[in-house]
Amino acid sequence: MAEDARGPGSPRGNGPTVGALGEAGVLARILPRLAGAPALLGPGDDAALVAAPDGRFAITVDTLVQDQDFRLEWASGHPASGFDVGWKAAAQNLSDVNAMGAVATSAVISLTLPAATPVRWVEDFADGFAAAVRGLGAHRCAVAGGDLGRGREISATTAVTGDLEGRAPVLRSGARPGDAVAVCGSLGAAAAGLALLESSVALDGPDAQLRELVRAQCRPHPPLDAGPRAAAAGATAMMDLSDGLARDVPRLARASGVDVELDPAALEAAARRLAPAAAALGADPLGWVLAGGEDFGVLACFDGAATVPDGFAVIGSCVAGTGLLRLGGRGVAETGWDHFDGA
Amino acid sequence: MAEDARGPGSPRGNGPTVGALGEAGVLARILPRLAGAPALLGPGDDAALVAAPDGRFAITVDTLVQDQDFRLEWASGHPASGFDVGWKAAAQNLSDVNAMGAVATSAVISLTLPAATPVRWVEDFADGFAAAVRGLGAHRCAVAGGDLGRGREISATTAVTGDLEGRAPVLRSGARPGDAVAVCGSLGAAAAGLALLESSVALDGPDAQLRELVRAQCRPHPPLDAGPRAAAAGATAMMDLSDGLARDVPRLARASGVDVELDPAALEAAARRLAPAAAALGADPLGWVLAGGEDFGVLACFDGAATVPDGFAVIGSCVAGTGLLRLGGRGVAETGWDHFDGA
Repeated sequence: MAEDARGPGSPRGNGPTVGALGEAGVLARILPRLAGAPALLGPGDDAALVAAPDGRFAITVDTLVQDQDFRLEWASGHPASGFDVGWKAAAQNLSDVNAMGAVATSAVISLTLPAATPVRWVEDFADGFAAAVRGLGAHRCAVAGGDLGRGREISATTAVTGDLEGRAPVLRSGARPGDAVAVCGSLGAAAAGLALLESSVALDGPDAQLRELVRAQCRPHPPLDAGPRAAAAGATAMMDLSDGLARDVPRLARASGVDVELDPAALEAAARRLAPAAAALGADPLGWVLAGGEDFGVLACFDGAATVPDGFAVIGSCVAGTGLLRLGGRGVAETGWDHFDGA
Repeated sequence: MAEDARGPGSPRGNGPTVGALGEAGVLARILPRLAGAPALLGPGDDAALVAAPDGRFAITVDTLVQDQDFRLEWASGHPASGFDVGWKAAAQNLSDVNAMGAVATSAVISLTLPAATPVRWVEDFADGFAAAVRGLGAHRCAVAGGDLGRGREISATTAVTGDLEGRAPVLRSGARPGDAVAVCGSLGAAAAGLALLESSVALDGPDAQLRELVRAQCRPHPPLDAGPRAAAAGATAMMDLSDGLARDVPRLARASGVDVELDPAALEAAARRLAPAAAALGADPLGWVLAGGEDFGVLACFDGAATVPDGFAVIGSCVAGTGLLRLGGRGVAETGWDHFDGA
């Protein structure tokens, strides 16, 4: 295949394609970019080897698919990059182990690429992945291995493991009536950023707030210290906010066998932080706060004996029930991100 | 989306599609099928929790992509099934931890599916995955979690972890001149089976040998006791045969800094087992033995102090060198499976 051949929807770029360079050539380009914390045994053998100091490990897996979970270019013309995809692939999986109260220890990555993908895009992906691991503070997380294969669309699957450092894992199912419901991290910022990226609003202007929301979408910042801190503080239940409050809170509520009452004042405070974007787009910021996904904040519950840790804002409380979400006494529809909605 | 809608290249089937059932509905259908050995904490939270008794774990990841690594239907008209894809997804990852000398402890699966995929196909995949875990003897391997998302083509990424039970991992890099090179498992059977499936040769006839080769391609049997047994016997180097002798042996040879001399008589013995298929197709069985992938046997080296374990056949020896493969004194071209070849 000629080096400049591009399939429909391929990322832009000059230079060689992965088809031209071959499997070994691409690996030689990206493995050095992914080097960070060492594993007991890193890439190069049939499997990697990772330490599990307390005799257990947490493990999670997620996939990002082209045109489903990320764009190669925004229809609006705003630039999209492999760096952002790599960042998000790391961030969303690091977030999952964080939400168990664990500290990430390793990541393995499987990349599926059309042969026409520019090697530059894959290098950017690797740079973004490594930057997220470093930038989010996952200093113990080794990129331990991976796999490279061919497909008609780009997809990146990441598995991340974590160490509970002797603590019990914090599950979704431990909340009890009377517990406070708290969040560490932004609410609706990533959804507001997505709406901006899909709009014609100019994002290179002087408004730093808009750029920050775009950044929340492209390079989300799960608060990686918050999970272990909440666990140490005695959180009764925990999960990350990947699909939005309206979808994630009922998951925790159902697993725990409680209802959750959210505090309208707390959500309105979060909505006010999105006011400039809402004004620019004529949108309702409370919709982003309730149904916006991909913020990757930590949702945690605390009973009366616990002190809610620094950085967590109380947004509601658990009451006796069966898994419903209410806002100001009224039921909230379970909207938010479903991977097969709109199918 | 209508229940009977099918995209191009979608698997055949009646009944609901994953788009009609939605993420939670599909998960509810497949999780019970995947239940086996228990993890410390299984599906349902942000991450699973797995035991690592000796304070370390091996981890590997691989992806199977529609039309690259598996077919939804063979052009020849031979039936293809989600069961076989699930079986192979489990087998190839179990093989990787086996080749380190480890015993599989957990699997996490990320499935990417077009909305038009019949739920029946996904159920078959889950049944095949679970059958492989059981049938290959991975009795400690829990299907600990997974992820479900949407894409334009079916792809299945599996990460598997393993326990070394206190043994040192056996790497590709430990072979030394004088070591015997041995294989446990078939050579070329999966490639012969692939050639049969792509041919018009009738496979429902009385020839059980042909059906066995087809089975080697569709439901490969990595010998899961062989890795730990070879490690216990003092193997100096080890890897699995996933891309064929001609490609995999040089990988081990380069990592170890030796050349490998293969014994023509040993390979001819393997080729004779493929003679009926070769005759039916007019093919050279030695080509399958040398370049055929997906057998998932164990390639292991043993020094003079070790006893080559039962089930391993010596096929050659290591000599001083730089990573070359020779057969009867002549160099062998490094052919075999490359994911981007033919791009």
